[in-house]
Amino acid sequence: MNSRERFLAACWSKPLDRPPVWMMRQAGRYLPEYRSIRAKRSFLEMCKTPELAAEVTMQPIRRFGMDAAIIFSDILIVPEAMGISISYEEGGPRLDPVISTRADLERLRVPADGDLQFTCEALRLVRNQLGGTTALLGFAGAPFTLASYMLESGSPRELIATKSLQYSNPDLLKGLLDRLADSVAWFLEKQVAAGADAVQIFDTWAGNLSPSDYREFALPSAARVIARVRKTGVPVILYINGVAGVLEAASTSGATVMGIDWRMDLTAADGVVGDRAGLQGNLDPAMLFAPVSRIRNEVRRVHSALSRRSGHIFNLGHGILPSTPLEGAAAFIDAVRELD
Amino acid sequence: MNSRERFLAACWSKPLDRPPVWMMRQAGRYLPEYRSIRAKRSFLEMCKTPELAAEVTMQPIRRFGMDAAIIFSDILIVPEAMGISISYEEGGPRLDPVISTRADLERLRVPADGDLQFTCEALRLVRNQLGGTTALLGFAGAPFTLASYMLESGSPRELIATKSLQYSNPDLLKGLLDRLADSVAWFLEKQVAAGADAVQIFDTWAGNLSPSDYREFALPSAARVIARVRKTGVPVILYINGVAGVLEAASTSGATVMGIDWRMDLTAADGVVGDRAGLQGNLDPAMLFAPVSRIRNEVRRVHSALSRRSGHIFNLGHGILPSTPLEGAAAFIDAVRELD
Repeated sequence: MNSRERFLAACWSKPLDRPPVWMMRQAGRYLPEYRSIRAKRSFLEMCKTPELAAEVTMQPIRRFGMDAAIIFSDILIVPEAMGISISYEEGGPRLDPVISTRADLERLRVPADGDLQFTCEALRLVRNQLGGTTALLGFAGAPFTLASYMLESGSPRELIATKSLQYSNPDLLKGLLDRLADSVAWFLEKQVAAGADAVQIFDTWAGNLSPSDYREFALPSAARVIARVRKTGVPVILYINGVAGVLEAASTSGATVMGIDWRMDLTAADGVVGDRAGLQGNLDPAMLFAPVSRIRNEVRRVHSALSRRSGHIFNLGHGILPSTPLEGAAAFIDAVRELD
Repeated sequence: MNSRERFLAACWSKPLDRPPVWMMRQAGRYLPEYRSIRAKRSFLEMCKTPELAAEVTMQPIRRFGMDAAIIFSDILIVPEAMGISISYEEGGPRLDPVISTRADLERLRVPADGDLQFTCEALRLVRNQLGGTTALLGFAGAPFTLASYMLESGSPRELIATKSLQYSNPDLLKGLLDRLADSVAWFLEKQVAAGADAVQIFDTWAGNLSPSDYREFALPSAARVIARVRKTGVPVILYINGVAGVLEAASTSGATVMGIDWRMDLTAADGVVGDRAGLQGNLDPAMLFAPVSRIRNEVRRVHSALSRRSGHIFNLGHGILPSTPLEGAAAFIDAVRELD
């Protein structure tokens, strides 16, 4: 079984030899070879230059040999393609203008042919370099998470603006989520056409919602994207940070695999999700700062506690932290590779 | 039934007319009368001056008539009494020195008679002003949360230092948690002696742990504090932010009431906690930015969804946000008061 076969078997909960493994944000700042490119280029420039995006996508695969590569990109390129200006400042991204009326919403365009070509081209380059033996993942932000960046004009915190709109003008928020769903679904279809074997949807901020608000706002828009992308035939992974309280609802989204963060036992997640989806996760990213023997024990503990022997993709419960030691990352990947 | 009787009945899951209500951080920056005192005094000065602490404790009671007052204080006064220096800078508190060896740990003193008198004196002043009809809460940080502030030298984020110690030298962390447990338990006993009807323990950061790390580190030290305080006869509320993934474990802590944040359905929490404890919560603090009618509907929805008719204290799922409109806070308190 090669890595690509193993990864896809896990996505579809089919039998496999051992769980496949990759790490969220594996093309990132913990890698010296990434930092040396990043020192000379801006983050958005790297996203928009296919050769650079392909190069940093390949870096962790060359070093560690994960079962899946994930294309280097950013969730905010979709709002940008819709007409929102994105700039990076101290303390994170800044998005303008804020959507506050129906007219603002109507001005947002749904991307179409010719948009976001750089990511599709990067996927084609990586597909060529990977050959057929390693899986390749595309990704996008979920509508609710993108809406929250747009409504908060940058990195969300307490989501006061988003929730205020949700309570005062739910129809406007739903209109924004609809338009984002169309844009995200279109983009993910393009990524599949360009060679992605599977896609991950990041609804990172949806775990900040009460479950009833999650069911009313975030879930329907994510489900709409998933339904369209599933028609292409590829599996869809849905990741929510702080998923525990909304997992039951989220697992009805149609996602093939549910990403589980580290603040919930994977066995408890298994009980909630049942046979509705596979599971991805869920080592605490801070665990990679532990001694190698501790990391190896934890990988074995998680694996043996989980009663399902198929439908599990090993991953961290959140993106790898920028200050993670390389030995910790290596120990994690190696420990999963030695499982049976 | 007066407010104090109602609050204590809810803590012990005894029959009552309607759920009692208060708000975490109700003595705080959303109140103009608080801001006018805070403009002239530092935060720690307010904590350490009994007349000022008593005054801001009373402010929300006078304005809104909650069923319980919570003494104005800060969780970091316990580490300070143990010999850690606390200073407030841009971006939050700074704590020195960091504990990194057994010798550092041995140098930490457990507070004793004469320490932290200002909070006990403030409790006596508030007790006098409240009379016997409104409940009075004392509080402290839980050992794990205090340890994380000490090990991160300030407000925790990813808890990298705390978790690194947890993985590399668990015995040193456990020694620190033991010493903190003795200090916190002593302080809460003193608060009860000074007139607190109940106490809340804030293990705010424990929800950042994986459930297995929670069970090994945060839970035993919180349970040790709770066991000592329960001997005084008062109920103990345990609050953890992001509790969903660790709620089952946390509900075995011996706490009389479990605080539930807003990212979990209260009915789901009821199913997990069962008759082990009462429940406190759990309106999304951002809901107070909603129109008044929406707030009232949400209060009624939460109340009617919950099948238990005793053992529920209405509260927000986290501290009230500083920019909360006064009308939102008033609508919440009024809506609970009108329940039956």
